[in-house]
Amino acid sequence: MSVPYSIKTLAVAGTDKQPKASDKIPIIARPFVSDRAKKTLDIVEKFVEEECIPGDAVFSQQLGLTPDARFRAHPPILEDLKKRARELGLWNMFLPKNHFKEGAGFSNLEYGLMAEYLGKSGIASEATNCNAPDTGNMEVFAKYGTQAQKDRWLKPLLEGKIRSAFLMTEPDVASSDATNISLTMVKDGNDYVLNGAKWWSSGAGDPRCQIYIVMAKSDPGNKNVYRQQSVILVPFDTPGVKIERMLSVMGYDDAPHGHGHVTFTNVRVPASNLILGAGRGFEVIQGRLGPGRIHHAMRSIGAAERALEHFLARINDPRKKPFGKQLHEHGIQLERVARSRIEIDAARLQVLNAAIMIDSKDAKFALKEIAEAKVLIPEMALTVIDRAMQAYGGAGVSQDTPLARMWASGRTMRIVDGPDEVHLLQLGRNENKRGPFLLEKVEWQKKRGEEMAKSYGLQNKDVLQLDREWSKEKSKL
Amino acid sequence: MSVPYSIKTLAVAGTDKQPKASDKIPIIARPFVSDRAKKTLDIVEKFVEEECIPGDAVFSQQLGLTPDARFRAHPPILEDLKKRARELGLWNMFLPKNHFKEGAGFSNLEYGLMAEYLGKSGIASEATNCNAPDTGNMEVFAKYGTQAQKDRWLKPLLEGKIRSAFLMTEPDVASSDATNISLTMVKDGNDYVLNGAKWWSSGAGDPRCQIYIVMAKSDPGNKNVYRQQSVILVPFDTPGVKIERMLSVMGYDDAPHGHGHVTFTNVRVPASNLILGAGRGFEVIQGRLGPGRIHHAMRSIGAAERALEHFLARINDPRKKPFGKQLHEHGIQLERVARSRIEIDAARLQVLNAAIMIDSKDAKFALKEIAEAKVLIPEMALTVIDRAMQAYGGAGVSQDTPLARMWASGRTMRIVDGPDEVHLLQLGRNENKRGPFLLEKVEWQKKRGEEMAKSYGLQNKDVLQLDREWSKEKSKL
Amino acid sequence: MSVPYSIKTLAVAGTDKQPKASDKIPIIARPFVSDRAKKTLDIVEKFVEEECIPGDAVFSQQLGLTPDARFRAHPPILEDLKKRARELGLWNMFLPKNHFKEGAGFSNLEYGLMAEYLGKSGIASEATNCNAPDTGNMEVFAKYGTQAQKDRWLKPLLEGKIRSAFLMTEPDVASSDATNISLTMVKDGNDYVLNGAKWWSSGAGDPRCQIYIVMAKSDPGNKNVYRQQSVILVPFDTPGVKIERMLSVMGYDDAPHGHGHVTFTNVRVPASNLILGAGRGFEVIQGRLGPGRIHHAMRSIGAAERALEHFLARINDPRKKPFGKQLHEHGIQLERVARSRIEIDAARLQVLNAAIMIDSKDAKFALKEIAEAKVLIPEMALTVIDRAMQAYGGAGVSQDTPLARMWASGRTMRIVDGPDEVHLLQLGRNENKRGPFLLEKVEWQKKRGEEMAKSYGLQNKDVLQLDREWSKEKSKL
Amino acid sequence: MSVPYSIKTLAVAGTDKQPKASDKIPIIARPFVSDRAKKTLDIVEKFVEEECIPGDAVFSQQLGLTPDARFRAHPPILEDLKKRARELGLWNMFLPKNHFKEGAGFSNLEYGLMAEYLGKSGIASEATNCNAPDTGNMEVFAKYGTQAQKDRWLKPLLEGKIRSAFLMTEPDVASSDATNISLTMVKDGNDYVLNGAKWWSSGAGDPRCQIYIVMAKSDPGNKNVYRQQSVILVPFDTPGVKIERMLSVMGYDDAPHGHGHVTFTNVRVPASNLILGAGRGFEVIQGRLGPGRIHHAMRSIGAAERALEHFLARINDPRKKPFGKQLHEHGIQLERVARSRIEIDAARLQVLNAAIMIDSKDAKFALKEIAEAKVLIPEMALTVIDRAMQAYGGAGVSQDTPLARMWASGRTMRIVDGPDEVHLLQLGRNENKRGPFLLEKVEWQKKRGEEMAKSYGLQNKDVLQLDREWSKEKSKL
Repeated sequence: MSVPYSIKTLAVAGTDKQPKASDKIPIIARPFVSDRAKKTLDIVEKFVEEECIPGDAVFSQQLGLTPDARFRAHPPILEDLKKRARELGLWNMFLPKNHFKEGAGFSNLEYGLMAEYLGKSGIASEATNCNAPDTGNMEVFAKYGTQAQKDRWLKPLLEGKIRSAFLMTEPDVASSDATNISLTMVKDGNDYVLNGAKWWSSGAGDPRCQIYIVMAKSDPGNKNVYRQQSVILVPFDTPGVKIERMLSVMGYDDAPHGHGHVTFTNVRVPASNLILGAGRGFEVIQGRLGPGRIHHAMRSIGAAERALEHFLARINDPRKKPFGKQLHEHGIQLERVARSRIEIDAARLQVLNAAIMIDSKDAKFALKEIAEAKVLIPEMALTVIDRAMQAYGGAGVSQDTPLARMWASGRTMRIVDGPDEVHLLQLGRNENKRGPFLLEKVEWQKKRGEEMAKSYGLQNKDVLQLDREWSKEKSKL
Repeated sequence: MSVPYSIKTLAVAGTDKQPKASDKIPIIARPFVSDRAKKTLDIVEKFVEEECIPGDAVFSQQLGLTPDARFRAHPPILEDLKKRARELGLWNMFLPKNHFKEGAGFSNLEYGLMAEYLGKSGIASEATNCNAPDTGNMEVFAKYGTQAQKDRWLKPLLEGKIRSAFLMTEPDVASSDATNISLTMVKDGNDYVLNGAKWWSSGAGDPRCQIYIVMAKSDPGNKNVYRQQSVILVPFDTPGVKIERMLSVMGYDDAPHGHGHVTFTNVRVPASNLILGAGRGFEVIQGRLGPGRIHHAMRSIGAAERALEHFLARINDPRKKPFGKQLHEHGIQLERVARSRIEIDAARLQVLNAAIMIDSKDAKFALKEIAEAKVLIPEMALTVIDRAMQAYGGAGVSQDTPLARMWASGRTMRIVDGPDEVHLLQLGRNENKRGPFLLEKVEWQKKRGEEMAKSYGLQNKDVLQLDREWSKEKSKL
Repeated sequence: MSVPYSIKTLAVAGTDKQPKASDKIPIIARPFVSDRAKKTLDIVEKFVEEECIPGDAVFSQQLGLTPDARFRAHPPILEDLKKRARELGLWNMFLPKNHFKEGAGFSNLEYGLMAEYLGKSGIASEATNCNAPDTGNMEVFAKYGTQAQKDRWLKPLLEGKIRSAFLMTEPDVASSDATNISLTMVKDGNDYVLNGAKWWSSGAGDPRCQIYIVMAKSDPGNKNVYRQQSVILVPFDTPGVKIERMLSVMGYDDAPHGHGHVTFTNVRVPASNLILGAGRGFEVIQGRLGPGRIHHAMRSIGAAERALEHFLARINDPRKKPFGKQLHEHGIQLERVARSRIEIDAARLQVLNAAIMIDSKDAKFALKEIAEAKVLIPEMALTVIDRAMQAYGGAGVSQDTPLARMWASGRTMRIVDGPDEVHLLQLGRNENKRGPFLLEKVEWQKKRGEEMAKSYGLQNKDVLQLDREWSKEKSKL
Repeated sequence: MSVPYSIKTLAVAGTDKQPKASDKIPIIARPFVSDRAKKTLDIVEKFVEEECIPGDAVFSQQLGLTPDARFRAHPPILEDLKKRARELGLWNMFLPKNHFKEGAGFSNLEYGLMAEYLGKSGIASEATNCNAPDTGNMEVFAKYGTQAQKDRWLKPLLEGKIRSAFLMTEPDVASSDATNISLTMVKDGNDYVLNGAKWWSSGAGDPRCQIYIVMAKSDPGNKNVYRQQSVILVPFDTPGVKIERMLSVMGYDDAPHGHGHVTFTNVRVPASNLILGAGRGFEVIQGRLGPGRIHHAMRSIGAAERALEHFLARINDPRKKPFGKQLHEHGIQLERVARSRIEIDAARLQVLNAAIMIDSKDAKFALKEIAEAKVLIPEMALTVIDRAMQAYGGAGVSQDTPLARMWASGRTMRIVDGPDEVHLLQLGRNENKRGPFLLEKVEWQKKRGEEMAKSYGLQNKDVLQLDREWSKEKSKL
């Protein structure tokens, strides 16, 4: 199929005068970015701004109106954009070069910079085969898969021909603590038989989603609670698997991708479908999550930047003049613009630093930084998007801007991959390990100060220590 | 005088197990830090933790109790620490290597990393001759001074023998807008005669403060409001100069440094005391402020880190067990620890990036980044310090911890060098310049989406557009 | 049709032990509440908790799935609940007794207390004929309508037989400033001809909505910008009126009520359709808005209370035990519960006081209090609902709890009836009128203090004023 | 001594045009306020605005400069204002009429309204003999004292001749949990012997402070941890009592009142000094704290109002025009004014309602409301004061406005009488008791909705439940 439109430069819209994506890389991060990545980054920006964002509107129209239609949809615009992306060399950029030969050869930092731009559009990530949860799933296959598993699933995933889902969260337990996972998985001959329910199985709604990577409880009696789980592959059409319904997010169905509520009734799969081995479920999920959180974070930053762009467009719209002044002439709006600028810029540096930590070693090495990003970025993005919504009034919460949808999507970021509270608790506990040493240090410094004072002939009196017999004095009053 | 104490390692206090300052440089900043700077940084940390922080208590005792005594004081501990600092090679680190040969040869970034540690103690900056406003004043002399001015004032300043003040803010006008400066300065023969009042003349209280750099209105009739001001040198003992009183900061007098309210009555100085030339006052203050804001910001980050250290010490103090649990076992405290960790880390990266921007060119190039730091860091530091105060209860607001004083000092950071609001306004205006382009872009993208949709045979109907004759239908109801 | 279910007490669910609605009226408000209102309030609570909230699920199912179906729907549950409400004496409680004989005889305060409970369900307001915008529209008819207008429109509205919409906001101007309204309205013989567009015409989607009350610009040349507008009645089926599309709110279509985008093309209506008279549009909208804002506010408080109920239910759900403890055992959750309790309670008092202000005179008398409620309550409600969403994780943002929908609805409250910013600006300006007096007072008090000090023989020296010749002293150093 | 100045009306300053205090009582509270209280309230306002606030400057000058002098000071202005207050009938208004005949005959609500105005000045509370901790101490004597104790201590306290302190907090334990109190108190014959340390003994610095009410551990072995403590009277000059030093608050010493750090070494007092009886310490402190928290809260509201007055004065000061506009013309300031107005007004209603709860029964009945006030009001007041400080710039943090001092004092309100965290925890736990019922209710409502749906022939399908065999369909793709 021929591309139904030609790429025009944004020159007509004045792009020439605007800095390119590569110009805007923070100076502190530049030593870590190759020239090739910079060049690709600029292509990503152009692709997103000129083709994907306009394409969002097409995608939306091609989805249909009833839930039934929407979760059967496979909008043609998507395949066209994928073709276009491959032509432009924008494909699988997410697979980090130091770990996978299958990727496009970028570091986590370099891809992170690109992910920011992908996050400005609803379809750009998938158009470049960089969409979650497929990205994390491909990493799982590449890292832990057998050759047979790779051939069967990784290959078509890398080519963007099928989609996948990762089934972990469950409706009946507190899944934020993964040891609670309770979908059962029992060995029966050479097979495993699964029973239970999963939800928030993102991507499961897509008609092209063919493989579920499932976390289940295989060894409930194991004394080590982190060895009770296994991860196993379940093809979507295995008998006993049923998508009960899809879940909405703040009113959005996110079709056709969606978030499935899936039940397993005597679902039988061969033991060869195990990933890494029985009892190694935690290993798999821990190896999977780090970079994905960076991707999410950078996409959220892109969403925040786009919200700010809309914000600025709105307050400079000459048709909108409440009380005789354009919105940008009302001081209250410029303060919000400024705060948004500050908050986005600081947040981005935090994520970029985390990405470099991963690149320098691995995700475990960047545990603290990833958790920090997980908490910091969604709160920042929601704040910025909310300010933009408010500047738009009604249009801000409606279908006329991308803001409401971006807010809804951003809101889930405070929940997915563990709610903020879990990460805050872990960060707090980690930081708290320094406590006993610091107590000792503070007391040492105090004592040291007293010794030093003595060496100067001072008596270590408190500044408000009064040398008098209070009671006697007062009695005379 | 011999050093009255010997440096002991903090080994007894467990330092060995703790990462050194150089280990904690964010990975993203490392390419910009020389090995020599790393080594110096570790010495700074040791000097601050082992000598300056304990020395704060000595300094406080050597000040005296009455205002009169406190503003005459010159605590011996300070001179001893200065001697010690010079022995350790810690002197004038603030003067950036790419601009001044007189300094210690570090970049703004490298010194910024050190300034964080200096900010943990009340006297470490002066002990290393890196205290404001002398730092900025030395930069002024080095950058714009005549040889005679340098010989007379810069030399003893660089040696830490005298102190200086910068007199800009005035009590009767809105000084946040420097064009309002109204202290008059009239040419009379080869002299200038000054009349008016200044306040918040920081450092003017110090008995060793010998030179005032004064911003005055020399050409009130100039059409260009940025050419009406000049900067001129006024020795402290020039007849007609009077320190009316000192100003307190949240109850602290900051003696002997202090903040002076100074009047000028027919103060006569030779025209050769002009800096840079008549009408060039704005040039001087603009060249002066950038790096200083980075120094302030990094010291504030050090203060926040020290507050967090105290916070952690407190919640691990075994004597403090409300309701049967130590404070760190109450979830509410760990959340605050975690948030503090996140906020400090993101803020630091913001400042380091700004410092590198300055290093790469100059302060003007980093205008946006410096303004961002100016707003972001004090709010962050105040929040972190406040959490620590709260964990301490009464001790937190009293003289028993450094927290209350650090908060008071941090609070002024939202005001000095222009209040937050001025920086927010400027940032907002700057960002707003993108507005018209963005409005055009957003509209271009919308139109483009519609064209693309048409090429797919779609009709650009709204998702909630209903194709029916509403009124007729309803009439039937 | 017979009621398809019987009202059971909540006794089985333990209600007996819980305080009734009338028990929970804040003590400070009790003198203003009649015994009859208390009795009715308890019936409202029971009706909402036992019939309307369960009915929400039925309503949702009876709506259908396609936009087309949803905006044609007239769910039977609604009519059954209306019948039931009339049996219980719960009908038109909103019409304040001191102004309208047609109502149920309650004050704004008394109805406000009831509105809180109505706000806990999505359909309770309409079930009792107390839903916006019909309430405000009925007030307009009752207050300003001719007898003919009352007979034709008010009567069926009071009986809940038809619905109405108020068309004010426009897509192409900054409607937050109503002087910008630009839909034209030109006299032509005995008719007016209207041209232009309106949006956010809430309720226009309902198949039973038969009358639009339209604000239009009738006299654009009038020097008094507050006399350029008129309000006129436009039956929904007048030729030239077209509902272009419906607007979504954070992903929700709010069907069948909805928010219409409506165009007017040569729409002709007789001049007798004018409300109050030509050029009196501002009078009409000002008389209309006050009590409505109180209703909105109290419903939002009900939503916040319901969110808190869900929050508490969730953290006491024995199936949800992350990290070995139920959620309520994690300190972080109890702090949020406590803050929610505090914020709701203070906000409620603010609104009740505003309602009493209106009751004591009229809405204009309560201008400040209404504006305060308009800003305070939505922010509070959003915060509380967001905390509850977060405690639920995924379920909180999905269709499984009412939280996401309540948040979306609450978010619009920061925009409808004028965005927060307009109310803040007006409040600020009003408060600022005290400024000159206060400046005078502060200066008077200062001078007075100086006089008093003199009478005690004091010299009005500053506490940090040092009596010495600074320069001479220092010279000796 | 004759009053050294005469009361002038504020008419010159324009007061006539301003509403009086009694005009500003929120309408919702009016039914609870007697005419006599309204009249007294207006006198309080006049006394505070015209005499006490100007008097603050005199008081400050009469204190002296050295700690030694300041804690010996007994400023004459205070005694003159007390005389004046008694003339005006403003004396002991705090003692609630329904409990004590010794007071001025006002309810807690009525006194609360007056306390707001007292809180605007630093000395007005003491000038009317309504200052903490004497108020609470007098309540203890009046409520629990023997006739002998009353004669000896209550009488001079009521006459304002002596001052008192309540010694509860200890430096070495977590006193926020009063069961940790560890100062020992051992029976020895007819005496008790006390050993240990107390701090934050507010008022102990005053030369006129003659009696300490001390909470001590008398029965450490008691199984009931709430019966281990006793409260006993210790005259200030009992041998073994030593004021070690005074504590500063954010840099302020609060002299001569102050906050003492006091040690007890074999301090012997007769058993007849016991209050209420051995082991009844908790009873005493619980009966004491409630109304005091309301007083603190209302004074804080007064401080916030005064801060807002200064804020408004500042932004209308014609001398302060940054960037060509007065501060009130910068939108950012008016938003802050408006938010301050909203927050103060809502907070006040919360406290007034709590006061009425106490009046209607007792402090225990108002447990929840008092705790809510304890958390809500200081945070509000600090926010408002901070905004005012920021509008002033340097003057805001210095001695030139009352703002810095008010902030410091307000900051301690988040700590005294138990830190916020303790109250939040208690409020959270209390509210959480509803949890199990609410879980049951929510589930009942869900089931009920399903039953109702069935009665309508609906199938309780989820809105996103798709009726198809997903796997088979997809297989065909």
